[in-house]
Amino acid sequence: MAIFITGVAGFVGSNLAKYFIDNGFVVFGVDNLSRGKLKNLASIENDKSFHFYNVDIIYRDVYRKVFNACHKKHPISEVWHMAANSDIQAGVTDSSVDLKDTFMTTFNTLEMMKEVGVSAFAFASSSAIYGDFGESTLYENIGPLMPISNYGAMKLASEAIIYAAAESYLDRAFIFRFPNVIGVPATHGVILDFVRKLALMPGNLPVLGDGSQQKSYLHVDDLINAMIYIVKESKERVSVFNIGPDDLGVSVSFIAQEVVKLIAPNAKITYGLDKKGWVGDVPRFVYSIDKLKKLGWGPTLSSVEAVAKALNEIVVQERKRNL
Amino acid sequence: MAIFITGVAGFVGSNLAKYFIDNGFVVFGVDNLSRGKLKNLASIENDKSFHFYNVDIIYRDVYRKVFNACHKKHPISEVWHMAANSDIQAGVTDSSVDLKDTFMTTFNTLEMMKEVGVSAFAFASSSAIYGDFGESTLYENIGPLMPISNYGAMKLASEAIIYAAAESYLDRAFIFRFPNVIGVPATHGVILDFVRKLALMPGNLPVLGDGSQQKSYLHVDDLINAMIYIVKESKERVSVFNIGPDDLGVSVSFIAQEVVKLIAPNAKITYGLDKKGWVGDVPRFVYSIDKLKKLGWGPTLSSVEAVAKALNEIVVQERKRNL
Repeated sequence: MAIFITGVAGFVGSNLAKYFIDNGFVVFGVDNLSRGKLKNLASIENDKSFHFYNVDIIYRDVYRKVFNACHKKHPISEVWHMAANSDIQAGVTDSSVDLKDTFMTTFNTLEMMKEVGVSAFAFASSSAIYGDFGESTLYENIGPLMPISNYGAMKLASEAIIYAAAESYLDRAFIFRFPNVIGVPATHGVILDFVRKLALMPGNLPVLGDGSQQKSYLHVDDLINAMIYIVKESKERVSVFNIGPDDLGVSVSFIAQEVVKLIAPNAKITYGLDKKGWVGDVPRFVYSIDKLKKLGWGPTLSSVEAVAKALNEIVVQERKRNL
Repeated sequence: MAIFITGVAGFVGSNLAKYFIDNGFVVFGVDNLSRGKLKNLASIENDKSFHFYNVDIIYRDVYRKVFNACHKKHPISEVWHMAANSDIQAGVTDSSVDLKDTFMTTFNTLEMMKEVGVSAFAFASSSAIYGDFGESTLYENIGPLMPISNYGAMKLASEAIIYAAAESYLDRAFIFRFPNVIGVPATHGVILDFVRKLALMPGNLPVLGDGSQQKSYLHVDDLINAMIYIVKESKERVSVFNIGPDDLGVSVSFIAQEVVKLIAPNAKITYGLDKKGWVGDVPRFVYSIDKLKKLGWGPTLSSVEAVAKALNEIVVQERKRNL
């Protein structure tokens, strides 16, 4: 059984590839290395079951060649599509970033599967597809979905074409709606941002927004675990699941304080005035994982614990990086 | 006040242009004439307030030139984006049809508005974004949205990027979720299909599916009327409205019988076995217009009346066409 992973050199993709290699699968991985890094694959790059292709899957011709070649080598049983723009703010400035890296990569991946006849598809969607529901709890069946960033919009657009594909040529589709996921290799996100700001200016930590933004955080180990669990246990043809911790999350100011406590106890934290950190930021949301709990899964770490674990991992990562 | 209409030579676009011209507006219209026809604009093409450009708006450079030139001539106050692939079945075979003609035309139109600074956007969405909810009533806030055709998927994908644009640079966005709309100039749809089949073979009317598919039909005059009403009356920044008749619709077999009664009373109607007419067809849905009724709008025709009126109009259209 071979697994095909897009965005394999990214944060989630590299953790996922490691999971599959550790569990005896053949893994084909593609990445354009625009945000992903080869060093994220260091622990598996020499494994003979792992095959990496540096290819940009927004170009369908080269994608077709690679996909066909992989499928000939070992028949692909599942495609895990993790490639996407992960920089929400970049997509606010330039809509074509999310169009290409998030939406067109999904479109092209589905086309490859249709052409070659691979029928199980797992997709990294996002809580950003919901938009701003204020205090309402985000269940999988809430509506109307009004994403407020191009990032969320192109994730929702991707979901839409996956549903259509599931009606036509996919046998199984898994839509995982990610919360904020933290851990290493960290490439972006609030913890890394704070750690790097303090490395540059140890005396001061300026925070975008007023710090009240409340979000739930899941450690990447729990995320991988949840996705694998859903693929094994869900009997739905199209499985849509929120994945997250089982709590209301923590505020940005809590994270700022934790980071300061650990690496620069004397630093002063200064906040902005806005409730939102940036255009497209959802200031607060309540994310339900009831459906996933009903399926029998629960996270091992709370948001608070996930932040603590990821913070320690990121500090180690950054020290290594600066050696 | 100038109105910019995409897909102006199509079924809804041409009716909309006529409405705006009749009401004293300057209208800029673009169409690639792939499905739209110039003759659909016959009643307004010589009006000095109407400006037509034969351009394919999936090409952004030429789109930019035309959009800028129009805006210089008369500042554009509203964009009505009606351009789309209207052939659901074509999009099942070839996903790139809906990608280009439905989704990329929306993406590009939003880009033009962002560049030039036009901030009111009206969009022809579709009941197809809902997917198959069986007997459940389709309210605007139902979920999860799982379109079962590329047509519906790319309409939903378009909605997604409009929401993101509304968070960033649009002041007002109108999402009209169309039911089956009928009338003239008819370019596709079940009535035209039946009329043309009977013109070819007057003795026999073969129907795709078992005829039990039940859908609501709105006459295009009521549709135009509803859209204009919503733009005037809705105070929401992003207005999402189902538009439709206030009934549960009629079955395909009813329409077949009406067509036969009118133009070939001796024809035999033969049905298929499937509940669905084709992949991507939703066999039955219950469409709520409660939100629109609350705003104060109601249709002048029921589904039954709309079918009767459109059938008569289409028979006249086809007679003219065959002269």
